[in-house]
Amino acid sequence: MANDHPTIQIFAPRWLIPVAPRDEVLEDHAVWVADGQIEAILPREEARRRQQASEHPVDWIDLPEHALIPGLVNGHTHAAMSLMRGLADDLPLMTWLEEHIWPVEGQMLGHDFVHDGTMLAALEMIRGGTTTLSDMYFFPEAAIEAVQTAGLRGVFGIVVIDNPNPWSADPEEALAKGIDLVNDWRRHPRIEFTLAPHAPYTVGDAALERVRTMSDQLELPVHMHVHETAHEVETAVATYGERPLARLDRLGLLNERVVAVHMTQLTDAEIARLAVTGSHVMHSPQSNLKLASGFCPVARLLEAGINVGLGTDGAASNNDLDMFDEMRTAALIAKPVANDAAAVSAHQALHMATLGGARAFGLDDRIGSIEPGKRADLVAVSLDEPETQPVYDPVSTLVYSASRRQVSDVWVDGRALLRGGRLRHLDSRAIIDRANSWREPIRQAKPAG
Amino acid sequence: MANDHPTIQIFAPRWLIPVAPRDEVLEDHAVWVADGQIEAILPREEARRRQQASEHPVDWIDLPEHALIPGLVNGHTHAAMSLMRGLADDLPLMTWLEEHIWPVEGQMLGHDFVHDGTMLAALEMIRGGTTTLSDMYFFPEAAIEAVQTAGLRGVFGIVVIDNPNPWSADPEEALAKGIDLVNDWRRHPRIEFTLAPHAPYTVGDAALERVRTMSDQLELPVHMHVHETAHEVETAVATYGERPLARLDRLGLLNERVVAVHMTQLTDAEIARLAVTGSHVMHSPQSNLKLASGFCPVARLLEAGINVGLGTDGAASNNDLDMFDEMRTAALIAKPVANDAAAVSAHQALHMATLGGARAFGLDDRIGSIEPGKRADLVAVSLDEPETQPVYDPVSTLVYSASRRQVSDVWVDGRALLRGGRLRHLDSRAIIDRANSWREPIRQAKPAG
Repeated sequence: MANDHPTIQIFAPRWLIPVAPRDEVLEDHAVWVADGQIEAILPREEARRRQQASEHPVDWIDLPEHALIPGLVNGHTHAAMSLMRGLADDLPLMTWLEEHIWPVEGQMLGHDFVHDGTMLAALEMIRGGTTTLSDMYFFPEAAIEAVQTAGLRGVFGIVVIDNPNPWSADPEEALAKGIDLVNDWRRHPRIEFTLAPHAPYTVGDAALERVRTMSDQLELPVHMHVHETAHEVETAVATYGERPLARLDRLGLLNERVVAVHMTQLTDAEIARLAVTGSHVMHSPQSNLKLASGFCPVARLLEAGINVGLGTDGAASNNDLDMFDEMRTAALIAKPVANDAAAVSAHQALHMATLGGARAFGLDDRIGSIEPGKRADLVAVSLDEPETQPVYDPVSTLVYSASRRQVSDVWVDGRALLRGGRLRHLDSRAIIDRANSWREPIRQAKPAG
Repeated sequence: MANDHPTIQIFAPRWLIPVAPRDEVLEDHAVWVADGQIEAILPREEARRRQQASEHPVDWIDLPEHALIPGLVNGHTHAAMSLMRGLADDLPLMTWLEEHIWPVEGQMLGHDFVHDGTMLAALEMIRGGTTTLSDMYFFPEAAIEAVQTAGLRGVFGIVVIDNPNPWSADPEEALAKGIDLVNDWRRHPRIEFTLAPHAPYTVGDAALERVRTMSDQLELPVHMHVHETAHEVETAVATYGERPLARLDRLGLLNERVVAVHMTQLTDAEIARLAVTGSHVMHSPQSNLKLASGFCPVARLLEAGINVGLGTDGAASNNDLDMFDEMRTAALIAKPVANDAAAVSAHQALHMATLGGARAFGLDDRIGSIEPGKRADLVAVSLDEPETQPVYDPVSTLVYSASRRQVSDVWVDGRALLRGGRLRHLDSRAIIDRANSWREPIRQAKPAG
């Protein structure tokens, strides 16, 4: 701000993986960034010449053994639930929710819980190369505060649920609070919103209609758990004679602003309808496996031209926020599900974890790929370790071999959050200690058995 | 050797996870080790008293934020194939083998390839908490040399395959070389052998009969890929009118020395037969997913009382040797396959990755759990990181949240191979550089397309 000239950074990785416009790997190239915005992808020699010709100081960032990728977009999470990581495992979705998670949330939820849990999640996300999260949780104002402190980019769901909860007495209150939040943060460059009706089985038609109207008026995405389990679909059919997706369609909630999460139960006709309406699917494979929810038919969705993003879900059901592990799982599980070892290649998995998620939430004009005009949300991954050598195809190496622990550097809007594996602005010890202070209260709030 | 008194070590972790005799987590306990052998599990205070009373020096190893687990047993790998990590991805098994892997192996295989590839694998295994590998590859003498240098424990397969290969002209030569190796290494405490007929479709009845006879005479386990894909079973039925497992049974090769790897195709009757015969199953879930081979019905196997171990397969089809990731995948994938979110708990996954593997190869008198009388093959995992906090159940944390990069210390026979995340005896740079020198020759040996 104080300077009258732009801050210039040049990122010079061994492998530049832009994700778009083409599915390619560039060597001997560099990314030219001015004031946090990508200006050009250049041959490295040309970048060097321009650097030498520049009147202003230029920060040349050498990444000699690294892949540089767009910041990962965790397209579906409940960040604050990191405080309940591993609290209740090896249980099906409804038992897990009704007998473990909801009772604890009923007692514990509040501003501090969400703030402290989201800070813990932010630590994990930064260290793992995630630069954007799409969050869905109560007290979003507390999550925003944490994400702001952390320097990440966030899309925050206004959770709408019929039953009273510690954040809102009813959908009306939730939406009113949501409008206030949207207005308060309208000018912030890294804070976005979605309307987040929890699921078809917790939100009635009246509230869903209000969500649709508000989504239309404010041009907000709708982020919702849909067809997570066969049980959900069967119960809806038995109770209402209608599959949840048909109900959403009837209510006008299949459209290019809708992001349907999980989607393990899909007929061919439903897939065709998703494609026609431009609806997005958010894939959370590890959560679907862990809760025995089923398999999202990702290869069929991609073949139908549907945009698919990737999310970890909350750390209470995953049990991590590791987008590398999620990419690997997405690429692996798609193959037997499609009965095709070529289904969901490493390149497609990386696309889902970056541009797919960005597009789902209408952010693909700003993030999701390393292209001129986009923000410099960038992640460097060191591949010079025994676990990732030799390198034949760095995208395969990233998806099938690399660990998030090889993420060395993370930038959001060109600002370094992690350099050489070290956090730049956060006090890890203090955040962990604060998160840990919730452990005993949570344990005691958990019902016995 | 020079001392007239034993070398005493006391391991004092925050969480001691013995795996056996009981599925438990001990706090405030310590492991007393003398000359590399576990002598006792003691309350920490008692260990402290005994330390103070000891006439000899005692090495007290404090692990204040760590889980201490038995060294992981990678029950199925092809270590040297790490040189081909990521060479050919997103392909089905037979295309991958016939059009990519076998042509490269045909040109490249030899003592140096296997030695250098196994050294790279050893680095990765030590850093990831694996203390024992069951290897199956050509030129086992070169792999033994590498594993010896690395200080790991190894079980080496004598690969038997009908077609000539760079190591053996025919099964007769392979078995003759195998007998020599077994004799040469008979007295080595950390080198064991298996007979390793490659697969039903590459080994005829005559060779399998010799394998069975030799297994009986020398009391050697038989380590074999079996029922890896539906294609394998269908082709066998079409060609010979017999499922491969029925054929092995007819040849006397279902018994308590047989370790059948993969096993994605199993009828109820076959599972019952495996249980009755005491055969072992080695589960490689990531490889099965990546090659779209199918799902091993692990929950049903465990329910039938069959011993199941866990292996990564080679890094050319995984693409890593990460037993943490493999445990996580095994626990996750079992749930939708069994349609039961309680199937294969975190504790069961850890059991497969330790004692299950040890038992399969007849090593459970020596390794696989932290029990008096066993060797001190121990692994410490630091859980004091954002990704693994808070800890409610450390076994859940290890399986569902932890990364192998949190392995801080590794001991084999009480000898430290890794301390504080640093290799004690190996030159990582030199090993990586040597592995990398194979990259261009391998790339050029790969058929185009």
